[in-house]
Amino acid sequence: MQNFTFQCATKIIFGKGTESHAGEETSNNGKRVLLHYGVGHIKKSGLYGKIVDSLNRAGVNFIELSGVVPNPRLELVEEGIKMCRENKIDFILAVGGGSVIDSAKAIAAGFYYKGDVWELFSKQIPVEKALPVGVVLTIPAAGSEASMGCVITNSNECRKISINSQQLRPVFAIMNPELTISLPDYQTACGIADMMAHTFERYFTNTPSVDFTDKLCEATLRSIIKNARLVLKEPENYDYRAEIMWASTIAHNGLLGTGREEDWASHRIEHELSAFYDVAHGAGLAVIVPAWMDYVWKHNTKRFAQFAQEVFGISAKDDRETALKGIKALRDFFKEIGLPVTLHELKIDDANLEKMAKLCTSSGHLGSFVKLKEEDVLRIYELALK
Amino acid sequence: MQNFTFQCATKIIFGKGTESHAGEETSNNGKRVLLHYGVGHIKKSGLYGKIVDSLNRAGVNFIELSGVVPNPRLELVEEGIKMCRENKIDFILAVGGGSVIDSAKAIAAGFYYKGDVWELFSKQIPVEKALPVGVVLTIPAAGSEASMGCVITNSNECRKISINSQQLRPVFAIMNPELTISLPDYQTACGIADMMAHTFERYFTNTPSVDFTDKLCEATLRSIIKNARLVLKEPENYDYRAEIMWASTIAHNGLLGTGREEDWASHRIEHELSAFYDVAHGAGLAVIVPAWMDYVWKHNTKRFAQFAQEVFGISAKDDRETALKGIKALRDFFKEIGLPVTLHELKIDDANLEKMAKLCTSSGHLGSFVKLKEEDVLRIYELALK
Repeated sequence: MQNFTFQCATKIIFGKGTESHAGEETSNNGKRVLLHYGVGHIKKSGLYGKIVDSLNRAGVNFIELSGVVPNPRLELVEEGIKMCRENKIDFILAVGGGSVIDSAKAIAAGFYYKGDVWELFSKQIPVEKALPVGVVLTIPAAGSEASMGCVITNSNECRKISINSQQLRPVFAIMNPELTISLPDYQTACGIADMMAHTFERYFTNTPSVDFTDKLCEATLRSIIKNARLVLKEPENYDYRAEIMWASTIAHNGLLGTGREEDWASHRIEHELSAFYDVAHGAGLAVIVPAWMDYVWKHNTKRFAQFAQEVFGISAKDDRETALKGIKALRDFFKEIGLPVTLHELKIDDANLEKMAKLCTSSGHLGSFVKLKEEDVLRIYELALK
Repeated sequence: MQNFTFQCATKIIFGKGTESHAGEETSNNGKRVLLHYGVGHIKKSGLYGKIVDSLNRAGVNFIELSGVVPNPRLELVEEGIKMCRENKIDFILAVGGGSVIDSAKAIAAGFYYKGDVWELFSKQIPVEKALPVGVVLTIPAAGSEASMGCVITNSNECRKISINSQQLRPVFAIMNPELTISLPDYQTACGIADMMAHTFERYFTNTPSVDFTDKLCEATLRSIIKNARLVLKEPENYDYRAEIMWASTIAHNGLLGTGREEDWASHRIEHELSAFYDVAHGAGLAVIVPAWMDYVWKHNTKRFAQFAQEVFGISAKDDRETALKGIKALRDFFKEIGLPVTLHELKIDDANLEKMAKLCTSSGHLGSFVKLKEEDVLRIYELALK
C-alpha cells in the first residue's frame, strides 16, 4: 500500500425532501450567492421554485447564471467569473448534475486566479484558492458533488481537460434520490457507466497489497450493476435510485483510490471524444473502457481475472479465459442497459482518431496501469471502432 | 434507505514515517497544545521522542499529560480539563490508541462545558463545542481517530458510557502502520474484534434496501478477517498491518451506517463488562457479540444467512442453518485468533450479571435490531457464560 492523504469534508445531506435545506446550508456558508444551473430542466421539474423558496426563506441574496450544457463550456465559466467579481459573490450554489457542478467549480477557481482561467486547465496550474461551492445534485454520475475534480470543455480548441484540487470539494451536497426518478433511461445508464469508470480508474492499479480498497471497489461495482438492472426495470423505485446515487458519490470521493496508484487513461481518451463530437461522457466511457481493457488486460491477467470473478462471478478454466470473459461481461452489461459499445454506434468514424490520439497525449503518456503513448491511444480508438 | 447526514472531515495522513508530520499538522491547528498519551509505551518505542522533535521543529508550545489507561478514566479527564483551562490550551494532540484519543476527546468536550464533565456522559448532554483534537494512532481498533464517539469509564460508579458528537471528530489522524508492528498478538486480535463489532452494529439493521452499505460492510469484514489471519502469522508484515489499520477507520467513521438504523446493543452490554471487570474492550466484544447473535438471529434469519454467506462463504441447506453456521464461524474465528468467547475464559462468573443487566438498561432498552430489556440483556450475559 502507498502512503496517502485523504480528506473529504463535504457534508452530505441525503434523502427525501432534502432540497428544502438548500437555503439554510447556503446561508451558513455565504452572504452573496450565485445560483448556477443548466438549461431549464429544474424549472420544468419544479426544483427551481423549491430552491428559490428555500433561499428566500433563509434570507439569502442571490443572482443567477443558467445555461450550463453537458460537457460544460469555458465561455460560460468566463461569464460566471465576471459576474461573481462584479457582484462580490462569496458562494456558488450549483443545482444540477456534474456539468453544472464542474462549471461552478471552474468559476470558483477562476474567481481568485489572476490570469486567464483556461490556464488552470491547459497549464495544470494548482488551484490555491476557490470560492466555496454547495450542490443540489440531480444526476448521479460524475461524483463531482464530493470530489476534487472539475472538467471543462474549450470547444474552440477541441479540448476537454480536468483539474483536481482539495479546494474544489463542495462544502455541502444535497442529494435527494426523488429528483433523479424522472431521468430518462439513457441518461441513467450514462451515469452508471461514469460511476463504474471512476471505480475502474482506481481498481486497475500496479500497487500491490491493496486488499481492503480492492474489496470496496468490487462491492461498489457489484451494487451499481445490481441496482442499475433493477432501476431500469423500475425507474420510479426510490430505493434503487438511492443506492445508485450514494454509490456514485463514494465511487469518486477518493476513498476507493486511497493507498493506490490510479490510472485515468480511459477518462482522458474519452475526454477527447467528447471534445470533438460532444458525446455524452458516460456513453463515451461505455465505448472506451472495454476497448482500453482489450488493449491492456495482458499487463496483469490476474487482476482482470479477479475483476471478472469478484464483480461478475465468473470462474473459467484459467486466469486468461476468466479475464476475457470479464471484459465481455462488462461490454454485455453496457449493451444490456442500452449503452453503445462501439464508436460506430455513436456515428463516429476514423476521420479524427489520429488527431485525437495526438492531442490527448500532447503533454506526455496517459495512465499508469499501462503507460500509453500516442500510438497506443490510437490503437484503443481503433479497437473501439467496430 | 433512510435519510442521513454524513460528514467526516478528519484529514487522514496515512503511511510510513507520517508521524514526522505531527508538528506541522499541529501548528496548523493550535498555538498552545496539550500532548496527551498513555503509560509510557510511546517512550519505550521511541515514538515520544519523534513526536516531541516534530513539535519542536514546528515551534509548537506544548505541555504534557500522560497516564491514560485502557478503559480511560474520568479522573484523568478532570485533571486534563483543569490543566487545559489553567494553561489556555487551544489544541490537544493525542498519541496512542482509542483510550488516549477518547480521553483527549473528553477533555476537549469538558473544556467548554460549565458543569461536571461526567454529566455529558451520564445525562447525555449534547456536546456543542470542543477543543480541536489531533491524533497519532498506535493501535487500530477503536476507530476513534475519525469517529464522533468517545467512551469514558467512571470507576466509582462502575459505568462506562459513550457520547457522540460531530464536534468530537479529530481534525487530523496520522496513521503509520509501522507503529503497530510491535503490538502483541492478543492486542492485535482485540482490535480486530472491536473493528468487526463496529461493522456489525451497523450491519444488523431493520432498515430495508441498504444494498450498497451492506456490500461495503461485508467487504470490510472480509478484508479484516483475511488480513487478521495473515498478520497473526506474519506480525511484521507492513501491508497486512496497513490493511487492518485503514479498515478499522472506515469501520467506524460512519460511512457504513449511512442510511440505516444502527444497533449498538453489544457495545453497551460490553461496556458494563469493562466497567465492572476492566476487561479489554475487544476481548469483551468477542464474548458478547456471538452471544448477542445467539439471542437475536431469529429476528431476521435472512439477514444472518446473508452475513454467513457473504462474509464467511457459507451456504447450507436453508437460511436457518446458514445463519447458525455463520454465528459458529464467527465464534471459531475469534477462537482462532486467540480471543476468549466465554465469560468463563475472562474469569467472570454470574455474580454481577443481574446488577450489570440492570445498570446498562437503566435509561431504557438497548439496541434497535431487537430492542433489549433488562431480562434480555441478562439472558445474553448468561448465554455468554459457558
